[in-house]
This record gives sequence, structure tokens and C-alpha cells, in this order.
Amino acid sequence: MTDPSTHINRHRIRVRYAETDRMGVAHHMNHVAWLEEGRTEWMRDLGQTYREFEDSGMFLQVVDVQISYRSSVTYDDVVVVETRLAELKRASIDIGYRIEREDNGRLVAEAKTTLACVDPNGKLRRLPEWMGRRQA
Amino acid sequence: MTDPSTHINRHRIRVRYAETDRMGVAHHMNHVAWLEEGRTEWMRDLGQTYREFEDSGMFLQVVDVQISYRSSVTYDDVVVVETRLAELKRASIDIGYRIEREDNGRLVAEAKTTLACVDPNGKLRRLPEWMGRRQA
Amino acid sequence: MTDPSTHINRHRIRVRYAETDRMGVAHHMNHVAWLEEGRTEWMRDLGQTYREFEDSGMFLQVVDVQISYRSSVTYDDVVVVETRLAELKRASIDIGYRIEREDNGRLVAEAKTTLACVDPNGKLRRLPEWMGRRQA
Amino acid sequence: MTDPSTHINRHRIRVRYAETDRMGVAHHMNHVAWLEEGRTEWMRDLGQTYREFEDSGMFLQVVDVQISYRSSVTYDDVVVVETRLAELKRASIDIGYRIEREDNGRLVAEAKTTLACVDPNGKLRRLPEWMGRRQA
Repeated sequence: MTDPSTHINRHRIRVRYAETDRMGVAHHMNHVAWLEEGRTEWMRDLGQTYREFEDSGMFLQVVDVQISYRSSVTYDDVVVVETRLAELKRASIDIGYRIEREDNGRLVAEAKTTLACVDPNGKLRRLPEWMGRRQA
Repeated sequence: MTDPSTHINRHRIRVRYAETDRMGVAHHMNHVAWLEEGRTEWMRDLGQTYREFEDSGMFLQVVDVQISYRSSVTYDDVVVVETRLAELKRASIDIGYRIEREDNGRLVAEAKTTLACVDPNGKLRRLPEWMGRRQA
Repeated sequence: MTDPSTHINRHRIRVRYAETDRMGVAHHMNHVAWLEEGRTEWMRDLGQTYREFEDSGMFLQVVDVQISYRSSVTYDDVVVVETRLAELKRASIDIGYRIEREDNGRLVAEAKTTLACVDPNGKLRRLPEWMGRRQA
Repeated sequence: MTDPSTHINRHRIRVRYAETDRMGVAHHMNHVAWLEEGRTEWMRDLGQTYREFEDSGMFLQVVDVQISYRSSVTYDDVVVVETRLAELKRASIDIGYRIEREDNGRLVAEAKTTLACVDPNGKLRRLPEWMGRRQA
């Protein structure tokens, strides 16, 4: 079984033309969607998809995003989003990311997101065990 | 009362940096969101907001989009989206648009969208009267 | 050598969470970016990338987009964008698309885009031969 | 003359349908574009537009983004982005933001972005004086 505390997912994304801006590079807002795509794949590796998680009536709400941009990429470049657990709390999870170019390994961005586990009413809930929460 | 069959809404939108691409102009996908913003304002003028419409359990589903791009705009340009009724059917509505630059009136794009009126199960429903449907 | 007039590219795209809307499905504006991703791959198959094409100082400007939406998809669904040549003119190209769900083959959308070949000054230019233009 | 060190711009943005996600709220990636729209208006107030700044051959490159999400907004809600200077360094600028709902003043997000002043070759340059840099 995949151990959430050590598992690292590496996910390839090819930069879309629509994601570039007039500076000629991928606009910094798109990296936020790339992180989300990375954690979707990281969760899939753990044995449940985030879609199933939502279908079960739970949500992971993004409460904090921090991104440091290190170098730019442009249309048709391929980036690899590396996703791993950063810290696990009772009702929230910190996920860490490293985005790099696939061709030369150059660091594109480092990021961390905090997600809170909530029910449909927005009430905080304990994270599920498959996401790494210790059993009582 | 505003007559849906003749009412024209003119809505200003300033092009975002994030909407430009590496060609230096607003990427053509964003015009689709501008049309949507235009028809939101057109409906507001008619006396009910589209949000209230959805809150009442009905939806307008986009089934067809046609856009002809005539000239480009870039970051910080202001466009005006002109929205009007094109054709009204029993369960769908064609809306026509003309996007132009505010400063010189130059035509940016012409468009038409077809929207079907559906309930939460995706079943076709009659358009509401405030949108211009003739009473029986 | 790949023949542009008959070549069909099939490209997989997994729907992003960020691409869904409050109706619970992929927002219709994103399909426009998917088409663009499809034709990027179609061109790559023909032997030159669109990025190289732009680096050579030429551009394909989108002048017309028509999309008919047939069924909706949502987060984590995988769609396949099928891209093929529709019609070739002297300075413009019509590309046809069919988007379907990968799991059940259900048709999601049909589309056509017209792209004009222009130089950096926006002046119309002949399409390159590798895109299928007949030699004189 | 507007003093950059104390000036606060308040800019209204109405949430687009396309910006919502299947959780029913504005997707967290869009706030990044809203911040950018806010600082565009803040700079306009200072006497030069960011577009003119780029036309003069200089760029502000986003090197860091931090956002804390406090409450959600949805389609047709109006938010106010409050933009102010946070810290001025020789070649970079920290800008602080507060996004709140216009109707009830509820805090939606707090954010900070760091932008580096670079020339077309990506080389760090001193910030212009109109942005608040002290003269030697």
C-alpha cells in the first residue's frame, strides 16, 4: 500500500498556448491549476480519487497558497509537478510541490497549499485515514 | 418594463493581463467568458438575474457558440460587449453579441450563442416569460 | 510522411477541477483551449511543431470558432480530442474536431476553427507546405 | 500627487460564472487574476499605467504569491480588491491586498505578491521613482 507520508507523485503537464501571456511565458495564475492537477494524481496514487472523496460528501477546501516562482516556462514546454505531503493536521493537510522543466530539470516553482477537510455545510471534519491520518 | 426582444445591453470589460497570450493579444478563449458576462448584464436589465434563475432551479445550458474574430485587443484595452436577443424558441434562446473597442469603436468580434433551458435533470423546459416568451 | 489531408490526431485530456463551474460540469469556455491543445498535437504529428512555426516568424490567428456542445463532462473525466483537416485554403486552414469521452465514447462536442496564416505585421501569408498546401 | 507609500486603491470585480467551480464557489485560482487587476488600478492611480511601463521596455515579474482564503464568494457576487504598497526594495516591490465582499464587507482573502523589476533580458533593474522609490 502506498504510504501517504512518503509518497511522491510526479505528473507531466505540457504548457498550453492559452496559458501564456504577453510577456511570452506561462502566466503565474496557471501554476495554481497545475498544483491542483498534481495533487489530484497524488491522491489517485494513494488509493482513492479526490472525485470519489467529493462524491462521498466531503471536500478539501484550499485555505492557503504560497508559490515562489523561480524560472519561467512557455508554450509547449513540459513541466513535471512533484507532489508530496508536507504536514498532516487533524482537519487539514499541507501539501508541498516542486515544479520543474522536464527537459533540463530546471526549477520552475516551489509551492505549498493548505487544504481544510469540510463537509457540505463548510464544517471542519477529520481527514480520512487513506490520506495518512493516524488511527486513534 | 424592458422589452427583451429589443433591449440591448452594453457592458464594459477591461482586458486582464492574464487574458493575453504570447502573441501579445487577448487569447480567443476569453471572449467566450466576455459573452457570458454580457448576457449576465442583459438578463439583469430584463428584471431577473441569471443567478436568481438558477436559484429557482432552472439552468441555461450553452449548446452552441459561434465567434468571428475581427481584430485583436490587448491588456488594458476596454471592450464593450453589446448583447441582444437574436431568436427565441420554445425551450432555447439565441443571443447575439458584438464586441468592440471602447476608444475607437473598432469591431473586435461578432458572436452568437444558443442556450437551452433545462431543469436540474437536464430535461428541456420552456423559457420563462420575462425572457421574452409569448404567453399562450 | 504523415499526410495532413487525412491524418487524425487523438489526444487525451483529463478535465481539471479548475475547469468545472457551479453547474457541476466543465465550463464551455475550456473546450476552446482543448481544441487548441488538440491542434498542437496534430501539427506535431505532421513534422513541425506550432512553436517552431511561431519561432520562424509566422502565426496562425484564430478567426472563427464554432462549437456545438452535445453532452457535459466533469472533473476527472478523460476526453479525447480528435483533430483533422477540414479544408485548406491559400492563406487559411479549417480544422475540424470531435471531442468524446474516453470511457464510453460519448460525443461531448463537435467544433471547427478557421485559422489565418499571418506574419508579425498581421499580413496574410501562404500556408507552409508541411501543413498540406499544394506546391505550385 | 498620489503618494505610493500610503495610497490604497479599491477596485470592484463581479465574479464571473466561468470563475466558479463544482464546489459552487469562485475557484481559488481566479483570485490571483483579481489581485493583478487590483494592482493594475493601483498603478494607474499613481500616474503611470503598467501597460505604459511595459511599453517603455520594463517588466514587473511575479516572484512570489501568498494568499489566505477566508470565505468563499460565488457567481454574481461583487468583491472589492483593496491594493496597497507593503514594502519597497531596490529592485522589487511587495504589494498587499485585501479582498472583501462589497455587500457585507466580509473578508474573502488576504494576499501579498512580490514583483521584481526586470528588463527584457530578465536582468534586475531599479524600480521607477513613480512607484515610490526614493531618489538618491
